Amino acid sequence: MDLREESMQLHIKYNGKIETHGKVPLDNDHDLAVAYTPGVAAPCLAIKEEADRSFDLTCRGNMVAICTDGTRVLGLGKIGARAAMPVMEGKAALFKRFGAVDAVPVCIDETDKDKFIAIVKALQGNYAGINLEDIQSPKCYDIEDELKKELEIPVFHDDQHGTAIACVSAVMGALRLVKKDIRTAKIVLNGAGAAGTAIGRLLVDAGAENLTVMLHHGALYEGCDNNGRPLDRVQEALSKVTNKEKRQGQLADIVKGADVLLGVSAPGAFTQDMIRSMAKDPIVFAMANPVPEISYADAKAAGAKVAGTGRSDTPNQVNNVNVFPGVFRGAIDVRAREINEAMKVAAVHAIAELIPENELREDYVIPNAFDKRVAPAVAAAVAKAAMDTGVAREQKDPEEIRRSTYLRVNGVPME
Amino acid sequence: MDLREESMQLHIKYNGKIETHGKVPLDNDHDLAVAYTPGVAAPCLAIKEEADRSFDLTCRGNMVAICTDGTRVLGLGKIGARAAMPVMEGKAALFKRFGAVDAVPVCIDETDKDKFIAIVKALQGNYAGINLEDIQSPKCYDIEDELKKELEIPVFHDDQHGTAIACVSAVMGALRLVKKDIRTAKIVLNGAGAAGTAIGRLLVDAGAENLTVMLHHGALYEGCDNNGRPLDRVQEALSKVTNKEKRQGQLADIVKGADVLLGVSAPGAFTQDMIRSMAKDPIVFAMANPVPEISYADAKAAGAKVAGTGRSDTPNQVNNVNVFPGVFRGAIDVRAREINEAMKVAAVHAIAELIPENELREDYVIPNAFDKRVAPAVAAAVAKAAMDTGVAREQKDPEEIRRSTYLRVNGVPME
Repeated sequence: MDLREESMQLHIKYNGKIETHGKVPLDNDHDLAVAYTPGVAAPCLAIKEEADRSFDLTCRGNMVAICTDGTRVLGLGKIGARAAMPVMEGKAALFKRFGAVDAVPVCIDETDKDKFIAIVKALQGNYAGINLEDIQSPKCYDIEDELKKELEIPVFHDDQHGTAIACVSAVMGALRLVKKDIRTAKIVLNGAGAAGTAIGRLLVDAGAENLTVMLHHGALYEGCDNNGRPLDRVQEALSKVTNKEKRQGQLADIVKGADVLLGVSAPGAFTQDMIRSMAKDPIVFAMANPVPEISYADAKAAGAKVAGTGRSDTPNQVNNVNVFPGVFRGAIDVRAREINEAMKVAAVHAIAELIPENELREDYVIPNAFDKRVAPAVAAAVAKAAMDTGVAREQKDPEEIRRSTYLRVNGVPME
Repeated sequence: MDLREESMQLHIKYNGKIETHGKVPLDNDHDLAVAYTPGVAAPCLAIKEEADRSFDLTCRGNMVAICTDGTRVLGLGKIGARAAMPVMEGKAALFKRFGAVDAVPVCIDETDKDKFIAIVKALQGNYAGINLEDIQSPKCYDIEDELKKELEIPVFHDDQHGTAIACVSAVMGALRLVKKDIRTAKIVLNGAGAAGTAIGRLLVDAGAENLTVMLHHGALYEGCDNNGRPLDRVQEALSKVTNKEKRQGQLADIVKGADVLLGVSAPGAFTQDMIRSMAKDPIVFAMANPVPEISYADAKAAGAKVAGTGRSDTPNQVNNVNVFPGVFRGAIDVRAREINEAMKVAAVHAIAELIPENELREDYVIPNAFDKRVAPAVAAAVAKAAMDTGVAREQKDPEEIRRSTYLRVNGVPME
């Protein structure tokens, strides 16, 4: 059976992918009086007195909203909030499965940016964090920036930052294998949309000093335009911290001698000749979905030492399932106010360094999504970075977070 | 331990009362590809093609939002959306426990009526129904009316209609015991707020022809005012279908010779003398919370044949836990567009007639909240009424709904 047909059958069989469960006893009148009226007045008043108590007195403390306006869903485009539900609900199921985070889809049928922001703001008291998803750019930048300013809980646009963390950790894992340093590696990144710019920024924050980002029509450099149109503000910011030599030209030129080639662009954007022109031990991650810039097989045949795509049917899948469950787990566990760059870089290192040196192989530089150690490691690292940078409302032992995450996610204690 | 302290301890121990669970296998890459990308594109496109498919392809079909603005929470007043969370979450837990309905708190920090309505409208695609809760009157009337007009899913203000169904079914059960007919019984209802007016309307829709509703300062009749102020529109509508004799006066006068006295007013509003002045076999439901208009013991001592309050510590508790789980279960099961009067009356009869004739007693005219038969009976009756009145998008056998509800709620098949 074809994958899409199988997916339809699954959705019909289960009527969606998540449900709610009660956590407290409700077996007699006394239970009702304690959990509901009149007893429930007590936690209500406690929260009225001190708003943050809603984190420990209600489900809010472990609940993330997956918010979309349905304007850029998967590769399907602007299919609307309602049609986006299966993606958001899938993400909710993954949050629970991989991060022990309760999560609910919040598909918002409102494409006006300011109204969307106002709605999320009015709902924030229900949640410990906001995962933005599948919102078209450049609107997604403004929505995230504005919400980060307005809300007291973490806001994380997974299409940007989850993808960026997954990609940069893949690069770091591959660089470990070939024994190159991110600071000196020549990195070329093709694509400067929402994911591309986030990857660029995170590469720089993770130490990359020789990165060139490619627009559709040539290299990004400070002062350039985008084929006659002005750069958007995110591209402009990125132009100031990359390509310091102001290299200009097409990808085929810029990629010559590069150590790393990354794509978040379009099917077929990379050729075997490009890979052949790279430095020794080329690293190629072609992440266009579902059809990559170059196939895994073609990249390897052209001499890539390490290759990977966004697909699960070839090695080294760049997969943000490794990222968002642990990132939110860690952020929530210390009640972080935000997910900042230091927390993202910490997640990168946690993922990139998870595979022991002696197990690293060309076709295994990224942990598998089902590796039980990933989310615990990411959660611990993110929580530590949150505490170190002063955005955590609570202080906890990162090792304890690693252990509790392992237990909650895997159902067995960490060895 | 005091009930409030016990409630605090419960909320701290469990960190709230609900959580999410995944329903589909997520154990390997293939599972991920089916439940999430790329397979999930199929249900997304199916919903884009035909919007209503979100009811069977996502969790939406069994998911109810419990929406409040926190302006009138329990007896605590305007404590705000965030502080209302424990109540909404408790309700969500009860929805699951008693109706097998998935439900989530949606506390909306927006007290502007129109903006609140716009937010709920923008969120409707996530839910099969909207349970409004703890919104101050008269705003709650406009919000419910407007949402009923705008939304394609049922909207039900439980403080009005859940309470009304619970109360009228209690009256009907008591009338069965004393062998009086609702059409001829003289009924006096003290209180014309949100709950009172809903009870009045439902009594009329259930057949009451001799009902007088009391305002703070005297009887409601067509053309009257409310102690100098104009009636609100809901009171005005009620004035046209009640008290046809235009009786005027205070409660102590109006109640003389009455068969039924109902209170949704204030502690101490009823006296023993009032009860002594009623007709043979007086029926008294004093539902002010947590302190009733007259205590159960005092009402009985004054000669009430049947008495009841909103409290669980005396017999005949008027409890909307008997109502909302089954009402939504039935409405959702046939994908009703709304919950109309016929469905409410059907719920009244289902509850009032659940106790077999030979089991009815003075202190047992209302089924207990833990009676396994209640929600199945209510769901079946509500679904049937929805189909009979043409608001059901799907046709199902009500007996099958009764059986499936019984199984889902109780975990064992109906005998």
